[in-house]
Amino acid sequence: MSAAGSRQWTLLARPQGHLRDGDVRLDEVQVPDPGPGEVRVRNTWLSVDPWTRSQMDEAPTYVPSFPLGSPVEAEAVGVVEAVGVGVEGVHEGDEVLHGKGWREVSLVDAADARVLDTSVVPAQTWLGVLGTTGLTAYVGLLDVAGFREGDVVLVSGAAGAVGSVAGQVARLRGASAVVGLAGTPEKVRWLLDDAGFTAAADYHDAPPEQLLTDLLPGGADVYFDNVAGPTLEAAIPRMRTHGRIALCGAISGYGSTDEPAGPSTFHLARGKRLTMRGFLVGDHLDRTDAFVADMTRWIAAGELAHRETVVDGVEATYEALRGLLAGANTGKMLVRLPSGA
Amino acid sequence: MSAAGSRQWTLLARPQGHLRDGDVRLDEVQVPDPGPGEVRVRNTWLSVDPWTRSQMDEAPTYVPSFPLGSPVEAEAVGVVEAVGVGVEGVHEGDEVLHGKGWREVSLVDAADARVLDTSVVPAQTWLGVLGTTGLTAYVGLLDVAGFREGDVVLVSGAAGAVGSVAGQVARLRGASAVVGLAGTPEKVRWLLDDAGFTAAADYHDAPPEQLLTDLLPGGADVYFDNVAGPTLEAAIPRMRTHGRIALCGAISGYGSTDEPAGPSTFHLARGKRLTMRGFLVGDHLDRTDAFVADMTRWIAAGELAHRETVVDGVEATYEALRGLLAGANTGKMLVRLPSGA
Repeated sequence: MSAAGSRQWTLLARPQGHLRDGDVRLDEVQVPDPGPGEVRVRNTWLSVDPWTRSQMDEAPTYVPSFPLGSPVEAEAVGVVEAVGVGVEGVHEGDEVLHGKGWREVSLVDAADARVLDTSVVPAQTWLGVLGTTGLTAYVGLLDVAGFREGDVVLVSGAAGAVGSVAGQVARLRGASAVVGLAGTPEKVRWLLDDAGFTAAADYHDAPPEQLLTDLLPGGADVYFDNVAGPTLEAAIPRMRTHGRIALCGAISGYGSTDEPAGPSTFHLARGKRLTMRGFLVGDHLDRTDAFVADMTRWIAAGELAHRETVVDGVEATYEALRGLLAGANTGKMLVRLPSGA
Repeated sequence: MSAAGSRQWTLLARPQGHLRDGDVRLDEVQVPDPGPGEVRVRNTWLSVDPWTRSQMDEAPTYVPSFPLGSPVEAEAVGVVEAVGVGVEGVHEGDEVLHGKGWREVSLVDAADARVLDTSVVPAQTWLGVLGTTGLTAYVGLLDVAGFREGDVVLVSGAAGAVGSVAGQVARLRGASAVVGLAGTPEKVRWLLDDAGFTAAADYHDAPPEQLLTDLLPGGADVYFDNVAGPTLEAAIPRMRTHGRIALCGAISGYGSTDEPAGPSTFHLARGKRLTMRGFLVGDHLDRTDAFVADMTRWIAAGELAHRETVVDGVEATYEALRGLLAGANTGKMLVRLPSGA
């Protein structure tokens, strides 16, 4: 074994609102041989996630902050190319999932590397529908929003990695209708033609009050909220009595330096007996096995549409995050590295 | 039997914000003999409740509206003085609870009159701690907020009919601390000296952010919200992870014609994994038996302090509602009629 050259992203400055070119830098480094208990992984796919933006802030509310001058990291999959002494259960050539991405070559504690089953799905699927975003959708819909068969379900950010799974799990579990909001006509077509949504609209086409009145003439039982802001404000009055809102994401506010306002329709929650519940997927990891079993079955049966938006090369990772925050993706946003082709 | 003279309140105009003298009128009427299935009740105590104000609006969000020109009504207790043909289970001389108050003499469907057990508590207690406000506190704390032994509980409007019971049920069920906000130094003393709250403060003494930081150095697991507005806004950042907020009342906004703003701290709900849940007591009437059993035991054992703020005469009812909305009461606000002395 010997050190391996790699490129990785370093955080230089805290972004002020939107991401600027100088906030990060792509550095060339040498990754040493793995120490005891470590493995070295040549990454094939890097995950691009909205919470990475939050981690660039000094004091994000629910994720750890990246220190200035240190690497930006997120999930990745890759192939183990070197194994340190004392490692058991991880072998050279294994495809593994780990949290040391945004780089070409990662040194990973073997205990934090999960060997992947790629017999049913390719490795990058474990970053998407079978990964954290998929689990977020699954527990957010079933456990946090308490979805029940026959519910009418509204999903915002519906063509994203989380939203597209949330809406389809609702469909597969017996929703009476699944309504999605997305950001382009093409995404809307995908929701209707491929993901099996009952109805969908481009949120640019009209104010959210009007769109939701048209799309939900009888109201919604569940709202899976990925965007917060005016859409949440418009959704609350459309909720049925005893409706449930899973507060998952606030992508409409990411990159803003203003304190977000509370939804002006909040006071309706009392009379409607609404439940609004925030959650983080990390509290629900005990649901992973049930999630993987359900999802693998649905994927194998061709019942769960999933798409990836792929960019190439570690040097494209930062721009991919910008794109994600601007809604450029349908489904999971991924970076493909040469060995992942 | 023969008709009985009575005075009752008629709604003449929709209040614009605060209650005006001309919005209601005290009318003299003759109440006829009870028809088949009816009883005539000479009321002894009238309940004064915050939701009566909402019912004066044209389109309240969660209670029925009083039509213009018709009587204002709320709960009352009284003595049956005449029984119509075909009535079973209600007899002359019975003390009953019914919903046709804000008058001296009521004609009530016998099916809607509940014969009261006054062996442990006097009749008016069934309008207060054993009545709708008490049940609201009980289910709001235990079922809606999911109170658990050891929780730190914050209650606003803590000296009111609902808040004072919510805080004490928390204490009796094993809260590790119960913190109350109220509106006068005298109420604060009552919370500390009689109701057994761990800590309490007059909300006029400092901005809510400062008060709650002082009162809840370790945060709160449950917030029983009777007031909404700036107090809710300040409570959200003080909630512990997985905290639960029961959205019970919004007395800070009653009488305002402005659309209430959403809490500016709402966005913290995601990271803190908060649950915010609106409720109406009418959905929880199946808990009445458990509630009455618990409360009767606590009252008999002297473990549950309860106070009433009493005004005299049907003519004082409207002013009593004004007083309630301004925080003039400690515990349940009641009107005593001559036969209730």
